[in-house]
Amino acid sequence: MTGRVDLNSDLGESYGAWVLGDDAAVLASVTSANVACGFHAGDPSVLRLTTMQAVAAGVVVGAQVGYPDLAGFGRRFIDMDPRELADAVLYQIGALEAFARVAGARVAYVKPHGALYNAVVAHEAQAEAVVRAVREYDPDLPVLGLPGSALLRHAEVAGLRPVAEAFADRAYTPDGRLVPRSESGAVVQDEDEVVRRAVMMATEGRVVAVDGSVVVVAAESICVHGDTPGAVRLAEAVRRGLETAGIVVESFA
Amino acid sequence: MTGRVDLNSDLGESYGAWVLGDDAAVLASVTSANVACGFHAGDPSVLRLTTMQAVAAGVVVGAQVGYPDLAGFGRRFIDMDPRELADAVLYQIGALEAFARVAGARVAYVKPHGALYNAVVAHEAQAEAVVRAVREYDPDLPVLGLPGSALLRHAEVAGLRPVAEAFADRAYTPDGRLVPRSESGAVVQDEDEVVRRAVMMATEGRVVAVDGSVVVVAAESICVHGDTPGAVRLAEAVRRGLETAGIVVESFA
Amino acid sequence: MTGRVDLNSDLGESYGAWVLGDDAAVLASVTSANVACGFHAGDPSVLRLTTMQAVAAGVVVGAQVGYPDLAGFGRRFIDMDPRELADAVLYQIGALEAFARVAGARVAYVKPHGALYNAVVAHEAQAEAVVRAVREYDPDLPVLGLPGSALLRHAEVAGLRPVAEAFADRAYTPDGRLVPRSESGAVVQDEDEVVRRAVMMATEGRVVAVDGSVVVVAAESICVHGDTPGAVRLAEAVRRGLETAGIVVESFA
Amino acid sequence: MTGRVDLNSDLGESYGAWVLGDDAAVLASVTSANVACGFHAGDPSVLRLTTMQAVAAGVVVGAQVGYPDLAGFGRRFIDMDPRELADAVLYQIGALEAFARVAGARVAYVKPHGALYNAVVAHEAQAEAVVRAVREYDPDLPVLGLPGSALLRHAEVAGLRPVAEAFADRAYTPDGRLVPRSESGAVVQDEDEVVRRAVMMATEGRVVAVDGSVVVVAAESICVHGDTPGAVRLAEAVRRGLETAGIVVESFA
Repeated sequence: MTGRVDLNSDLGESYGAWVLGDDAAVLASVTSANVACGFHAGDPSVLRLTTMQAVAAGVVVGAQVGYPDLAGFGRRFIDMDPRELADAVLYQIGALEAFARVAGARVAYVKPHGALYNAVVAHEAQAEAVVRAVREYDPDLPVLGLPGSALLRHAEVAGLRPVAEAFADRAYTPDGRLVPRSESGAVVQDEDEVVRRAVMMATEGRVVAVDGSVVVVAAESICVHGDTPGAVRLAEAVRRGLETAGIVVESFA
Repeated sequence: MTGRVDLNSDLGESYGAWVLGDDAAVLASVTSANVACGFHAGDPSVLRLTTMQAVAAGVVVGAQVGYPDLAGFGRRFIDMDPRELADAVLYQIGALEAFARVAGARVAYVKPHGALYNAVVAHEAQAEAVVRAVREYDPDLPVLGLPGSALLRHAEVAGLRPVAEAFADRAYTPDGRLVPRSESGAVVQDEDEVVRRAVMMATEGRVVAVDGSVVVVAAESICVHGDTPGAVRLAEAVRRGLETAGIVVESFA
Repeated sequence: MTGRVDLNSDLGESYGAWVLGDDAAVLASVTSANVACGFHAGDPSVLRLTTMQAVAAGVVVGAQVGYPDLAGFGRRFIDMDPRELADAVLYQIGALEAFARVAGARVAYVKPHGALYNAVVAHEAQAEAVVRAVREYDPDLPVLGLPGSALLRHAEVAGLRPVAEAFADRAYTPDGRLVPRSESGAVVQDEDEVVRRAVMMATEGRVVAVDGSVVVVAAESICVHGDTPGAVRLAEAVRRGLETAGIVVESFA
Repeated sequence: MTGRVDLNSDLGESYGAWVLGDDAAVLASVTSANVACGFHAGDPSVLRLTTMQAVAAGVVVGAQVGYPDLAGFGRRFIDMDPRELADAVLYQIGALEAFARVAGARVAYVKPHGALYNAVVAHEAQAEAVVRAVREYDPDLPVLGLPGSALLRHAEVAGLRPVAEAFADRAYTPDGRLVPRSESGAVVQDEDEVVRRAVMMATEGRVVAVDGSVVVVAAESICVHGDTPGAVRLAEAVRRGLETAGIVVESFA
């Protein structure tokens, strides 16, 4: 049996003199690049470099939109007025679009980052604001997020394409949610195990939960990380493992 | 004899809780809105409001690009690497484009702001960087600037359309340059006189210099200000005066 | 019967080219200046000007600390880690202290601003963080806040002096809380009425609630605003009314 | 023959999620920590950590003041009005002082960073502004800079203590200036050679220039870097080499 899945990763998160992650290495493994747009990370020159590298690597460019919070790397919830949030999202998409355009590509999807990603799982007004901004900008842009999130629900209601993602290195509860990072066993450390989980997600749309039960994870994309050398190696292993299993690894966009 | 001229003004320069200028009033007088893009002024919600108001008023939207310097309002020269400057310009154009698009319009031209405007009069590398960014983004975008500036020269060389602007309320030297603000008489205060100068600029392409000589000011656009109540009234008077003189006031773009 | 009360107001909230409020006028009426420290408003030159003006007017300088959020003017809750918040508070106090010192004064108290002010009414961890920063910096610094707030409770527990403030132009509920601004009648418009309430607060420590009952408002300071011409006039009227009633208007610090 | 010298290094240049340098390692080698103050690098929590680590290591804390330019890491000249620059310097000193105070220390000197460091070599107005801010804050604070710079000259004129620094890993011209980094041979790569130069600087106050001549480098401090693993090892070697040569390595402050 074969399947088809996208691999996405956060990229372009350097800023000025500060370097984060090994984008070039990660781009060799993924099919979708969530490019930071300058609000939580990324400066104009980083946006240019990242989009150029992504396009050169044949990787699809998406806007990784975040709260306006460089100091907090977008990891702190900000109680933004939904209209201001929608405007902030629109601004970020537009800024990235300029670089995508110059690189010969287009912003092909939108994924919230960090605390915004977490907020739009349940915060209806903020989820709706993100969706509204995307729809205003281009109703053909897919929105990438957590299965079952308010974000994906609002996207669907608004006529946008919701794209669910899964995490091969994260433990799942029996009801299909992520085990919180604060709990032991939240992160799967063993590389082979992570690869096996990725393959099962891509071929069967399922994952083994912490209690041994098998739960549905209907995801079109698997998220991998590239901010540490270990993460980069894991991303490479997942890509290799998926292809070895006969799975077509390609962008959803 | 009749002529044709554009009136441009800096708009969208509020930020967060801070309001600057009376954009709604100015939009009733001008034909081109130089909209700040968030680097020296303007936040995402201000960009949305300003582009919407401009489009509603039938005013063309241009990107007023500046140095990344909110605290200095873009009025301090920053010795940016030309590549970083080009990227900063591209980022700002893209961000504004998103709002123009949502408002049903397009970014129709680019004008540097403040210290960048002054820098690109003579700073070859920065002038070339601004031009390069515009050309990369869209070679059909005109560039608005000072007659005789490095900016307009580089624009022409690069195949972009250079658009020269004049200042009806500023005194000119016999060789067609602006009298520096630090000198007395640099600013023409009398409203009727300003209107007469604007009309002469639009119909004859000339202005009376400080020594009484008549110099050529070949400008497609006249810049008016809107940051004080007096400036707004002056902009209205200039618009009225031009139309009374049978001049067609319309965007160059 | 006479009393004694402080009048405090938010000052130094301009930023770069953007002016907010009429600080010079407000300083003629108040005894305590809550000076913004650059995180939600204020830039270094505004800090200098404001502290110099306050000292020249004989007004005590306090640190008006806020979230790091210029674009939001500190009015959006940010879910900062308490340690990061404490560090942000310490940074702001220190920055203001440099200007107070140069002006021949000292930071004499701390008051949270905007969303932080509201958060520390009930957010135990953030309230504790603000108090911890103040105590670390100088355990003799009073903390100004809402009566009954977590902030003042933590301040007391930590051995800091809690200073409660009242609002002469805000309606109170029968249990001594502020009527939310979203409800009609939340703001008392009539100048004479506001002055009467201020006098009653200062002499009796009480105010007439919306239902006509009289409730205790044990406040050492009354907060007045200066961000509009009307607010400045009201501050002047309150100051005059208090003095006419024989109340000593002086700083609590 | 023995001597006495200080070793200084730039520290606290991380920001939010971005880590730069290995401060803990560098602190084991140096006697003076130039701590970034948040304008070009450093956030409040980085300031706290760095001052605490410095104090714990017995290293003196100095304010490494820079232009307000996070994106440019303070490496781009900004044509700031001298009064605004003085205020920016004052703000940074004050902010750092709060953390020094909490850590049980004091800001003991001031050193400009990056483009500001370079600017105040010859830019009289900016040099004078930095000196003015330091003198206003505390006339007992030494100012660290390049020998022969406008900064040290203005410091001396203003009654501040000028402290000259040397660079053991940089080549010198026959007239005692640094060979520009753009020229080959500007940086001395060999570790033993760097150590020998440091010892000669500390004991004889001289260095061998690129043409083999011996030039005077009257420096009280030697600057070492810690932003790369190689730089950290070099700092350790210099410290060890100096002590082995019987030189007392201690702060000038």
